[in-house]
Amino acid sequence: DRTAPADPAEAEDFLRRCYLENPRLGPVEPRLAIVRAQIAATGTYVHTTEELTHGARMAWRNASRCIGRLYWRSLVVLDRRRARTADEIFSLLVHHLQAAGAGPLRPVLSVFAAAQPGQPFARVWNEQLIRYAGYRDEGGRRVGDGGQVEFTAAMNGFGWQGKGDHFDVLPLAIETPHEGVRLYELPERAVREVPLAHPEYDWFTELGLRWHAVPAISNMRLTIGGVHYPLAPFNGWYMGTEIGARNLADTDRYDMLPTVARRMGLDTTRESTLWRDRALVEINRAVLWSFERADVRMSDHHTESQRFLAHIRSEEKAGRPVPADWSWIVPPMSGGITPVFHRYYDEMDLRPAFYLDDEAARLAREGSRCPYRK
Amino acid sequence: DRTAPADPAEAEDFLRRCYLENPRLGPVEPRLAIVRAQIAATGTYVHTTEELTHGARMAWRNASRCIGRLYWRSLVVLDRRRARTADEIFSLLVHHLQAAGAGPLRPVLSVFAAAQPGQPFARVWNEQLIRYAGYRDEGGRRVGDGGQVEFTAAMNGFGWQGKGDHFDVLPLAIETPHEGVRLYELPERAVREVPLAHPEYDWFTELGLRWHAVPAISNMRLTIGGVHYPLAPFNGWYMGTEIGARNLADTDRYDMLPTVARRMGLDTTRESTLWRDRALVEINRAVLWSFERADVRMSDHHTESQRFLAHIRSEEKAGRPVPADWSWIVPPMSGGITPVFHRYYDEMDLRPAFYLDDEAARLAREGSRCPYRK
Ligand code: HEM
Ligand code: HEM
Repeated sequence: DRTAPADPAEAEDFLRRCYLENPRLGPVEPRLAIVRAQIAATGTYVHTTEELTHGARMAWRNASRCIGRLYWRSLVVLDRRRARTADEIFSLLVHHLQAAGAGPLRPVLSVFAAAQPGQPFARVWNEQLIRYAGYRDEGGRRVGDGGQVEFTAAMNGFGWQGKGDHFDVLPLAIETPHEGVRLYELPERAVREVPLAHPEYDWFTELGLRWHAVPAISNMRLTIGGVHYPLAPFNGWYMGTEIGARNLADTDRYDMLPTVARRMGLDTTRESTLWRDRALVEINRAVLWSFERADVRMSDHHTESQRFLAHIRSEEKAGRPVPADWSWIVPPMSGGITPVFHRYYDEMDLRPAFYLDDEAARLAREGSRCPYRK
Repeated sequence: DRTAPADPAEAEDFLRRCYLENPRLGPVEPRLAIVRAQIAATGTYVHTTEELTHGARMAWRNASRCIGRLYWRSLVVLDRRRARTADEIFSLLVHHLQAAGAGPLRPVLSVFAAAQPGQPFARVWNEQLIRYAGYRDEGGRRVGDGGQVEFTAAMNGFGWQGKGDHFDVLPLAIETPHEGVRLYELPERAVREVPLAHPEYDWFTELGLRWHAVPAISNMRLTIGGVHYPLAPFNGWYMGTEIGARNLADTDRYDMLPTVARRMGLDTTRESTLWRDRALVEINRAVLWSFERADVRMSDHHTESQRFLAHIRSEEKAGRPVPADWSWIVPPMSGGITPVFHRYYDEMDLRPAFYLDDEAARLAREGSRCPYRK
């Protein structure tokens, strides 16, 4: 429970590992004595910036669904624990997106105040800092991201009005204990976007597709040594399939396969022509090609699979297990021809870690805390 | 353990279910009394043909890795429990392949003698009744099925000589308690094959690819109500991806992606051109198109996914759980765009069931029982 006192055993376990992996932090024993006393007195304790940084990197390292962990040491951690108001938080989130999206993209994590035992805390309702709105028009036809229709309607309920286009960036819903929930419109400079074109099909641009450069998950709780950070948005760079094989392809998201297949002139009357698979490959080629052309860092699923196996080898060398969830690690297209398909993984819940709490999941889905208000 | 006495509790559990699902078999109680007495006297018992048939169908229904279970009731079960010699077994296996491969293909299972407690038993070493040999030529280059190189070498050790082509059908290695292991060459009439061509690329036929029509797993133990059948080969029809995305694509099998991509003129210098994915789709189109043209039943992964969800719905209606293993059910290509991807499944070990024993796996891999003889 994220509002319970910090567990001293978990704190000790984390600190021992952290200091063992970072000899330059010095001996852990004196630090342990301080932390034990802090927990005894206040129910929790305060991480040093070094502990926070390494703890966040460990949480990434332990993210069993993440294929991108080879570069876990490179995570940039921004210590934002002093921010209190929604305005402060918003301007730091804008800063996060700008820092992450500059140049060739960098993995960044901003960590805001820890949850204090028994106290309410600040959070962002959105599942990612950047997401596109979804609507149903009068005819019941979907516009925009089908996965955001409910959340978008809730934002409308708070007075936000989208343009009704396919790629309207949603406002951030920032909740603080003193201000309740407040909506903020992201400025253009915070939202780097890539228009999608295809290396061969000129008509592809006519589809008007685009996607944002930075995937930044904003509703997972970061837990380090028994301390919970409910607001700790993080980003890497995209693996192309996340956009091309899920966001644009899922039937309840942008559902683009039928449109692309028709433009390609494929026979969609029978599954065995594999028109879905052919359209899927072309969308994914367009995504990778467009990001490359725009100089925005992105990896393909073959390369990222190879890197993940390199990560496993390097962690094994360091004597650490690599918890991994097969069904998340194997990419959603061409699974069998990626090397990550052909092996088993350890499934373990190691900490520090990122967790998606049920309440956070509901807020991101429904834009509302109340299960009856629908 | 397949050589231990039959477990009376498992026998009872099976019989109760079997008779409940088949009211025309009459009341189960008298049958239970007989079976209990048989087990007490002999350590095992003998299934009636009806029990055997329904038990095999239940084993298919319980096969958590199988996407093709919608038609479990249609399994044709051939009762071969009286066969003893290798010659008899061989001629019945030939009959199985002919019966299965006739017309539009039928799911068939042939069940041979049950293992008697503490006694040796007959088995087939091959993992499938039809598999192509694999060789390494002088230059170390692989010819044929890379997955069968070791088994093929073992068959050579028994005196079998292949032509050294890419699609030499392996002999059957049939082992009986009295005759040891004997090799049998399958006659042409037992091996229906489909030459592979592409609906658009004329050069595809020049690759000289082909595949057999009937996938018949021959080394899994069928266990029904505590009785073990170590030789119970079964077949369905192929789902195209088994051939196109695994057998022909895996780097340690036929490894055809680079060749096909080159013939397509793709840029194979960078992964981000998705040349692997493009070649993969075209191989799979060729497989589906060629089987269709040859009037050999085969399903594509989209259709089979939809059928599997229909199966789940119909089993739920019957009040039965559907054990399923996500990583096997989701097809090895275009996983994310098949409906089976977007849900969780129950993982359970229900019986009757098929099991692959370690010894059977080793025999199929190495063509030898002795771990030291290599
Ligand atoms: C550097 C480039 C990165 C790549 C290419 C990458 C790739 C991925 C992919 C493909 C997924 C699966 C997403 C999905 O299917 O919805 C994933 C999940 C995840 N990643 Fe990464 N990632 C990267 C960076 C990061 C960073 C910096 C963190 C945290 C510091 C992180 C933590 C996670 C977590 C917690 C999940 C699971 C999310 C969930 O449960 O919904 N990743 N990653
Ligand atoms: C009727 C058409 C059928 C289709 C389309 C089908 C499809 C499949 C597929 C795609 C797999 C995964 C294979 C792999 O990835 O290696 C599989 C596995 C399996 N199927 Fe089916 N199947 C069919 C019929 C049957 C029948 C008749 C039986 C038994 C009576 C059966 C029992 C199994 C079992 C036991 C496995 C797991 C094999 C293993 O562990 O290696 N299937 N099936």
